[in-house]
Amino acid sequence: MLVLITYDVNTETVSGKKRLRKVAKQCENYGRRVQNSVFECILDQAQSVVLKQSLIDIIDENVDSLRFYYLGNKYQTKVEHVGVEHGIAVDQPLIL
Amino acid sequence: MLVLITYDVNTETVSGKKRLRKVAKQCENYGRRVQNSVFECILDQAQSVVLKQSLIDIIDENVDSLRFYYLGNKYQTKVEHVGVEHGIAVDQPLIL
Repeated sequence: MLVLITYDVNTETVSGKKRLRKVAKQCENYGRRVQNSVFECILDQAQSVVLKQSLIDIIDENVDSLRFYYLGNKYQTKVEHVGVEHGIAVDQPLIL
Repeated sequence: MLVLITYDVNTETVSGKKRLRKVAKQCENYGRRVQNSVFECILDQAQSVVLKQSLIDIIDENVDSLRFYYLGNKYQTKVEHVGVEHGIAVDQPLIL
């Protein structure tokens, strides 16, 4: 299923900037960055639970936030993009 | 239906900062900000088309991007939030 993850991390402090890097890095392990703070990940249920918990462990829930949108398996028709592209589709073959 | 709108606007220039403010303001007219660059809007088909075109007219497609996620009407179970809250649910009554 497609899981969309969006986050706001408060980067006013050094530790905030560190959390932001950690969140992005962890999301990169599971999916593709489509915008600065937006990742699309193709995950099964177990992976989704693991990723979610790992992100919760990184953020400071008093100042940061995470949102998870579960778009199921038929997500192709549910997404539209306009403007500059940030990456390639997570489930598309990479042609080199 | 719930339409999730995420955007990246390049704010390296004065005109970029202006575009960012315009995009946010236009989204605010239709929905609720849930994170810095993430809005949730309850729209019908016609409203969705109008909002999308108005945002396309604001951005610079060479450096900015918009993404639209169509989550249908049964979206309550498809969204999870962790951490600090940014607003109230779009379809919840406002108790004053």
